[in-house]
Amino acid sequence: MDFNEKYGAYLNEFNAVLQDFCNNLDCRPDILKDSLKYSLEIGGKRIRPVLCLATADLLGVERKKVMNFALATELIHTYSLIHDDLPEMDDDDFRRGKPSNHKVFGTGNAVLAGDGLLNTAYSILLKECRKGTEFISAAEFISDCAGIYGMIAGQSADLLHENDKSFNEPTLNFIYENKTGKLLTAPVVVPAILGGGRCYSELKAFGRDLGALFQITDDILDIEGEFASLGKSIGKDCKEGKFTSVAVYGLDGAKLRADVLAERCRAVLEGIDGNRDFLVRLVDYVRNRKN
Amino acid sequence: MDFNEKYGAYLNEFNAVLQDFCNNLDCRPDILKDSLKYSLEIGGKRIRPVLCLATADLLGVERKKVMNFALATELIHTYSLIHDDLPEMDDDDFRRGKPSNHKVFGTGNAVLAGDGLLNTAYSILLKECRKGTEFISAAEFISDCAGIYGMIAGQSADLLHENDKSFNEPTLNFIYENKTGKLLTAPVVVPAILGGGRCYSELKAFGRDLGALFQITDDILDIEGEFASLGKSIGKDCKEGKFTSVAVYGLDGAKLRADVLAERCRAVLEGIDGNRDFLVRLVDYVRNRKN
Repeated sequence: MDFNEKYGAYLNEFNAVLQDFCNNLDCRPDILKDSLKYSLEIGGKRIRPVLCLATADLLGVERKKVMNFALATELIHTYSLIHDDLPEMDDDDFRRGKPSNHKVFGTGNAVLAGDGLLNTAYSILLKECRKGTEFISAAEFISDCAGIYGMIAGQSADLLHENDKSFNEPTLNFIYENKTGKLLTAPVVVPAILGGGRCYSELKAFGRDLGALFQITDDILDIEGEFASLGKSIGKDCKEGKFTSVAVYGLDGAKLRADVLAERCRAVLEGIDGNRDFLVRLVDYVRNRKN
Repeated sequence: MDFNEKYGAYLNEFNAVLQDFCNNLDCRPDILKDSLKYSLEIGGKRIRPVLCLATADLLGVERKKVMNFALATELIHTYSLIHDDLPEMDDDDFRRGKPSNHKVFGTGNAVLAGDGLLNTAYSILLKECRKGTEFISAAEFISDCAGIYGMIAGQSADLLHENDKSFNEPTLNFIYENKTGKLLTAPVVVPAILGGGRCYSELKAFGRDLGALFQITDDILDIEGEFASLGKSIGKDCKEGKFTSVAVYGLDGAKLRADVLAERCRAVLEGIDGNRDFLVRLVDYVRNRKN
């Protein structure tokens, strides 16, 4: 099976679970249910769940065992996008080629939709906790990644340095490591935790570097991408003089940095026993992505 | 010990734990930490933690056992106030006599502060899960109360019916039961769960009625209260023609309804063995509160 087929297979497996989850949502009023489903069903690469399932395969952990953690992570990711797109945050009118949640449902409902997804992610995780201590550890790892020492710290720093023209590298690293890196680390470390701890540190480093790579390619796409394939506003960060890797390193410098990070990701994978092909190709895919 | 002394004792016991929690917050950037602490340390009645500790005493459950659940509930309550005060929600500039979180830190940071408190509440709850199955059940109960079938459903309905002039009673009940009732039910049911289930249903009914009572007295205070003791804008709901119990029942009708609910709360307490004095007085306090 080639990379695209394999990606599609993971994607389908996850989307079936997500669709099932959406179909079972039964909350009132309708606008709450609709706003939750809108952002979940809008699509996207689902790279976090795909990473989670693929890492489980690499480590020989049953995919079924990690599935609800993949689901919770995607819910957390989706809530963060909804809140990030709000006018008082990144102020983005488009997401995945469609109007942002607050453009469809209004900002108040978008705040609540985000809150609702975050809360529901934890309802899912708490249910997993009944299965044993390692499941509690996995849930705690996700919580640490998503919280005030993880993703939220990164978002806060991003907001703080929005108009910072000093463009210093340690701040950039802090933002990328936390804002993007932590929630890409969670889905690769959860299978390690549920697999008894094998390759825990290696996969943690892999997630961090993949996160930085992902964010830098995002910055490059902001300059070179096309709305049609990207599905969100182009040149926005650049136009706003935002504190990004392109501002810090220049466009060519950012590309070089992306190459270094991709190489580091591959090097970590080299050290792990098992069928690494898919994840190696996934690194290339992130490096060369068009959306 | 009279009611006020006892309330003060519970309050001090909880505030010491909360202060310790705040002192140990070590997240970056500073604005994130400061915004979290600002809303937590601003004070307030802490009625949820006080209810939790008092119910533990009533049922003979160690207060230490419920303390982190009281803390998590107060974090969730505080996040909901921060998001509720946002311009796109209730648009309130004052909370507990001080400027709302977003007036001090900006709306973007206020969104993140709320997200951060919700996430941290779950970090606390996940840690509790290691102590045993009944702790997981208690955490799940809080999650259900706070989530899309609980508080968030109530907030969503409240937002939806903001300008609804039909003022129908079932909708009002749905909003009050979920928006306010659920998160007042959690702190009285958690001790029941951790105490082996005794009085679970009774305390669930008590929490629901106390929540409705609390919300109706809030509506009455919006008309009759004073800024000095209330610490938030007065007459705002009334001026905006908001969908409240006063709009549905009239001011005198709302007072009658509050009396009925207070009586129902007392009746539930009558059926529970133990020292109920404090909770009975707490019901009177909520009925007659000036802030």
